Amino acid sequence: MPAVFIRADALKCINPLCTPLMTDMYQLTMAYAYWQAGRAEEPAVFDLFFRKNPFEGEFTVFGGLGECIALISSFSFSDTDIEYLRGVMTGIDQGFFDWLIKADCSKVKVYAIREGTIVFPRIPLLRIEGPLAVAQLLETPLLNLVNFPSLMATNAARFRLAAGADKKLLEFGLRRAQGPDGGLSASRYAYMGGFDATSNVTAGKFLGLPVSGTHAHAFVQAYSSCEQIRQRCVDGKDVVALAELYRRRLGYETSNIGELAAFCAYAIAFPAGFLALVDTYDTLQSGIPNFIAVAFALDDAGHRAVGVRLDSGDLAYLSKEVRHMFEVAAVAEARPWLAKVTIVASNDINEKASVLHALDEQGHCVDTFGIGTHLVTCQAQPALGCVYKLVEISGSPRMKLSENKNKVTVPGRKCAYRLFGADGTQLLDLMQHADDPPPRAGEPVLCKHPFEATVRAMVTASRVMPLHQLVWDGAGGGVVEPLPTIHEVRAHVMKGMASLREDVKRSLNPTPYKVSLSVRLFAFLHELWEHEAPIKALS
Amino acid sequence: MPAVFIRADALKCINPLCTPLMTDMYQLTMAYAYWQAGRAEEPAVFDLFFRKNPFEGEFTVFGGLGECIALISSFSFSDTDIEYLRGVMTGIDQGFFDWLIKADCSKVKVYAIREGTIVFPRIPLLRIEGPLAVAQLLETPLLNLVNFPSLMATNAARFRLAAGADKKLLEFGLRRAQGPDGGLSASRYAYMGGFDATSNVTAGKFLGLPVSGTHAHAFVQAYSSCEQIRQRCVDGKDVVALAELYRRRLGYETSNIGELAAFCAYAIAFPAGFLALVDTYDTLQSGIPNFIAVAFALDDAGHRAVGVRLDSGDLAYLSKEVRHMFEVAAVAEARPWLAKVTIVASNDINEKASVLHALDEQGHCVDTFGIGTHLVTCQAQPALGCVYKLVEISGSPRMKLSENKNKVTVPGRKCAYRLFGADGTQLLDLMQHADDPPPRAGEPVLCKHPFEATVRAMVTASRVMPLHQLVWDGAGGGVVEPLPTIHEVRAHVMKGMASLREDVKRSLNPTPYKVSLSVRLFAFLHELWEHEAPIKALS
Repeated sequence: MPAVFIRADALKCINPLCTPLMTDMYQLTMAYAYWQAGRAEEPAVFDLFFRKNPFEGEFTVFGGLGECIALISSFSFSDTDIEYLRGVMTGIDQGFFDWLIKADCSKVKVYAIREGTIVFPRIPLLRIEGPLAVAQLLETPLLNLVNFPSLMATNAARFRLAAGADKKLLEFGLRRAQGPDGGLSASRYAYMGGFDATSNVTAGKFLGLPVSGTHAHAFVQAYSSCEQIRQRCVDGKDVVALAELYRRRLGYETSNIGELAAFCAYAIAFPAGFLALVDTYDTLQSGIPNFIAVAFALDDAGHRAVGVRLDSGDLAYLSKEVRHMFEVAAVAEARPWLAKVTIVASNDINEKASVLHALDEQGHCVDTFGIGTHLVTCQAQPALGCVYKLVEISGSPRMKLSENKNKVTVPGRKCAYRLFGADGTQLLDLMQHADDPPPRAGEPVLCKHPFEATVRAMVTASRVMPLHQLVWDGAGGGVVEPLPTIHEVRAHVMKGMASLREDVKRSLNPTPYKVSLSVRLFAFLHELWEHEAPIKALS
Repeated sequence: MPAVFIRADALKCINPLCTPLMTDMYQLTMAYAYWQAGRAEEPAVFDLFFRKNPFEGEFTVFGGLGECIALISSFSFSDTDIEYLRGVMTGIDQGFFDWLIKADCSKVKVYAIREGTIVFPRIPLLRIEGPLAVAQLLETPLLNLVNFPSLMATNAARFRLAAGADKKLLEFGLRRAQGPDGGLSASRYAYMGGFDATSNVTAGKFLGLPVSGTHAHAFVQAYSSCEQIRQRCVDGKDVVALAELYRRRLGYETSNIGELAAFCAYAIAFPAGFLALVDTYDTLQSGIPNFIAVAFALDDAGHRAVGVRLDSGDLAYLSKEVRHMFEVAAVAEARPWLAKVTIVASNDINEKASVLHALDEQGHCVDTFGIGTHLVTCQAQPALGCVYKLVEISGSPRMKLSENKNKVTVPGRKCAYRLFGADGTQLLDLMQHADDPPPRAGEPVLCKHPFEATVRAMVTASRVMPLHQLVWDGAGGGVVEPLPTIHEVRAHVMKGMASLREDVKRSLNPTPYKVSLSVRLFAFLHELWEHEAPIKALS
């Protein structure tokens, strides 16, 4: 097990850009205006939530909480931050900067859903309680630290669902991500959502993720003959001579000889990890014959080849042809292990239309998928729309109206509970005032649709799970309990995905999961709405 | 002018994740295999290029070169990098790590196109010449540092094209970007591609970009009455009392009073920067009336309001209605300046279908666009597919074949030239062997399509611009000339976009720009192709 240089559970943001200054300018202008009005320390409550599941799906994996807490625990403006802000916020009362340099999260409380939980629209992922101006300043960093991680973890979980539990999934996206840290975030949350390993070495070093990778086309192109190989032997056997022999014996003479040399060189360097990229010249005419020849040579030296990687062409067709060629050669040479070597596929794989589901329909013999661009860019929907809304100030609930009903926020301090049925499946999530008594197992509770008065259900739960817990208590010592490691969070995701109803997680037309309000919260929401909305004058 | 804490032209990556370890594992396994074969120091040449312009367009803005050179100049594995790698690359010859810890770019040369140039498929953006294993290790970091920046700068340039030169464009994407650094990269390259400012304060501090921002819905929600305002005066005038007076006098009594209070508080905090978000309750019934009342009050105190921001609804319709309301009130109260205050629009704006072009068609009165999600995620195409291909090794040209002709690489060390016509417009780019004499103005040169023998043109250029220059010479002192500032690169983009032919840059069915090969390079490519490709056996 390699060393991990920053523990995933350490309270330290990996990226030094994770500072309070990683924010939108308007958070600072608002903080100033609150301060100037004498309201900076007024107690406020904000909810962080999303309104719509991504990828035309009906579930979301919550990621990013650990990084949020790391930011909160170290939240403090540096001297150079203040110096910079003095330069851009000119003409304001300089007393603000004396307040700002002391601003921290020592009066903030954060209630949150456990990281890695499967979550649904409107239920707050985090509830932030604290001084108005500080809680306001947290908006942009927290959104940044939740939006992409949750989107990425959800995307990864969807790939995992589509590929099935028995396939290996590798994340290969570093080169197409949004810069260095975009790449690291992608690796981190792809693993959290269910991938097995990443190609990103930095993610291995700093997060302890398993890393994986063999060679690229350039390596094959770098060889034009077997004479370029200096060290030819593995455990005393001349692998190059043996490979050339098998190539002739098996009738593979039209294969590209440079490719054979490259495969030999790689096998000699990594006799226990020989996995060959086979499409540099022609997969079936050259790559596979060369691989088989070298795999047999390596076998004579006492090592079993790992497999091949396909990186172009029709992956369903090619994987079946390749598997067939392996089976034939395994029989011909009486080496049955060859029939079962790994086939990795890694070309432009996305979750929907073109690849994973289509491959399943056509049948294929791929064991492992290496997925880059479509995974890390979340091409099918490149942003999750988490928002951060003021829901209470000085004990008075607030709401944001909108002509679009879906954008109306639910006011006040709220908690949510997950209610389970007799068979153990989750029935719905119920949101209510934070101070109301929780629903109880065995007792019927009326659960209301947030906006449709007549859509409701009487639910008698066999089990009630509170979704929110206090995770940061600034005044009470900070972090409430040690953060889980990324491996623990990943296991929590896997468990949550396994217990999620099939109809909610299916790819085509999934059933929406119900998110409901208590009777009292429903009535409260609609009263406040009527009170706040202006009456339109028509004449 | 605020202080800039890391100069954009300094040879220092802002993100400490920009290290040689920001790479795919297979670069390291390949480096080991080269080293083991005694080939690590063999001279190699790699091209970094893309095959297709993004966004269904026919041009790309080249971004990221500065960060590439910063990485190259500081390329060195740390002791903890090596310690980590020893842990994951087990069972290999430990002598490799002695080589690796000394690996740097002191024997590397980089030829590149100037950052900010408008570029086209197949022409190398960078040509890397150096020891095989080191040049190989550069692949992933360089791709990471070019792909997203170029995509982002191109996206920004397309938004600029669609909005027109007279509009202001603000980047608001930090909360939806790929993590902290994804956000910083987005801000940086959106500015480079033609945006005017960003909301991202970190980008202001570290890159010296102009920052911009006012307030959010939460600020409005935080106020429910004018009594919450402690300091009511600006330059001796009670702005709150005046605003209440104007509200009554103008017949705006149904507007939300909390919103009026919030606008007053903001105007008092920033009398010279009063820009109000007007859609918290109802834009036309509440937000605009309240804004006008406060703007008049502020005017009485000697300050002109800046304007309003629309963040929901039909932006074309609303902006026209709002402008009309301003014009009416400007006449009624004899304050003509009100008719011309800024209207900012910021809700889900994308380049194509739904907003910018549609707004243009419908007519609108928006002066400034604030664009977040669609800009920073490059939603229309979230990745640019730059690749890094071996084109020569030990003086011998190499190529990668593919059944997909578009994926075939052009072998050898190459240079490119941009040829201009008599009227000053660019005619095409011509790629040829690096050592061939450059084309000369006034002399006809035959330019060939890379794959279609009969598609060619005889071009007599009025001007010939070499595209590649030496930007890094490891043995000759490193950086060849000081890197331009981001402002200089932005100016270069603007100039390039202005001189690009209209038919190439139009949004719908743009004309492909011609990228051609010299006669000698064309012949060479096709000879090598025939030599390398295996002959399929059919029977």
